[in-house]
Amino acid sequence: MTYAVALNLDEGLVFCSDSRTNAGMDNVATFRKMHVFEVPGARVLVLLTAGNLAITQSVVNRLAQTDNDGNRLIDTAPTLYHAAEMVGSAVREVFKRDGQAMRAQHAGFSASFILGGQIGSLAPRLFHIYSAGNFIESSPETPYFQIGETKYGKPIIDRLIRPATPLDVAAKCVLISFDSTMRSNVSVAPPYDLLCYRTDHLKVDFVRRLDADDPYMNSLSKSWSEGIRRAFDALPAPDWLAPVHPNKGGAQA
Amino acid sequence: MTYAVALNLDEGLVFCSDSRTNAGMDNVATFRKMHVFEVPGARVLVLLTAGNLAITQSVVNRLAQTDNDGNRLIDTAPTLYHAAEMVGSAVREVFKRDGQAMRAQHAGFSASFILGGQIGSLAPRLFHIYSAGNFIESSPETPYFQIGETKYGKPIIDRLIRPATPLDVAAKCVLISFDSTMRSNVSVAPPYDLLCYRTDHLKVDFVRRLDADDPYMNSLSKSWSEGIRRAFDALPAPDWLAPVHPNKGGAQA
Repeated sequence: MTYAVALNLDEGLVFCSDSRTNAGMDNVATFRKMHVFEVPGARVLVLLTAGNLAITQSVVNRLAQTDNDGNRLIDTAPTLYHAAEMVGSAVREVFKRDGQAMRAQHAGFSASFILGGQIGSLAPRLFHIYSAGNFIESSPETPYFQIGETKYGKPIIDRLIRPATPLDVAAKCVLISFDSTMRSNVSVAPPYDLLCYRTDHLKVDFVRRLDADDPYMNSLSKSWSEGIRRAFDALPAPDWLAPVHPNKGGAQA
Repeated sequence: MTYAVALNLDEGLVFCSDSRTNAGMDNVATFRKMHVFEVPGARVLVLLTAGNLAITQSVVNRLAQTDNDGNRLIDTAPTLYHAAEMVGSAVREVFKRDGQAMRAQHAGFSASFILGGQIGSLAPRLFHIYSAGNFIESSPETPYFQIGETKYGKPIIDRLIRPATPLDVAAKCVLISFDSTMRSNVSVAPPYDLLCYRTDHLKVDFVRRLDADDPYMNSLSKSWSEGIRRAFDALPAPDWLAPVHPNKGGAQA
């Protein structure tokens, strides 16, 4: 399983992905699910992948293929929208090549992608591309996308992330979202890849792999647990002094 | 969709369920998903249901059918284990009656149940019954079950619930779990039915329906949001002063 999330904020973009891959719980491996296509000073594109690794690796390979001038395919996209179309086309090509044979083996054609970045002076954009190759774009109302094992880590993002959230605060929130996911699902685990991109820098400002023993991540996880516990303890329990019992016609106990 | 959860704790049992039912987002209704079979002084059994309402209502009807002496079927179970078997048998009977016709209409046979309670001087027990009629029991390591839309509300339970957690604290945690679920999934919504059972009381001690405008629930929701925000704000953001960039051979920005 995978968990990956990306945010499109006023200050820039935040990407984070785990690196756990498994084919059954007895076959767990670590593969990078964050792919950076950077031409410093000109463009930064980041692709997060989830789903069948044979599909997603083939898509990444196709996007990175170079033409006679040595340019990668993805680097020829004039806009992020065109780049999202390229991801969609690539996954359709893989489906055309592998889909029928996979179905014959009862393997579902499962893959999803988050693509974000900035090209030249255009505004940063963020897209979610499905296994059918179609895609949607983020909006100020929903400035983020998640792929993979998304539900455990969604409430904290829904509570705290707004377009105006600063990049470093957003990164902190994303890492807490990963911590919550990891606690509830053994198939999501460190190391995590975290990348922050500040609008108009046109280069990757910050990228870090956070291992299982990363001091910041461990401190964040521990302090967050303690903070949650304190916030919880501070809340009043339900009022037990006046129980009601509708099944008994409203009789008081 | 449904969300329901039940806990088996040292002090007793806690049950909570939402009451939203839908067949597509344009057809939303409210049905009770918590069913109480109580014989005061003798036994308390509580059944939470999720899935296809035609299935779960039929199961509840079969369990409540009376014999010539006026005893409900479920009340004849000598132990909770036998009662869980009765739920399993009932869902298999419904499958036998409706399963083939449902499949012909491409309707999946989807239903799940949580059954908990106490009979006489036996210890309280908690079971999770699947649509195939098979079932599992809770354990001290995992003292709770969830059915329906379970993932959004799981991290807070994993963090805070232990067998030794007092009933009122557990009820507070369960309601926060519902609050988190409701925020992230529009198909889960109040009113919520909350029931707490204290071991050896052999009657329902506390049951309450919490509506959308319930003062305690609204206060809990607001205070929890504020507490989460404070706990979050108190954590340090990642150290942005020493960015690393592995893709660039470790060059410092």
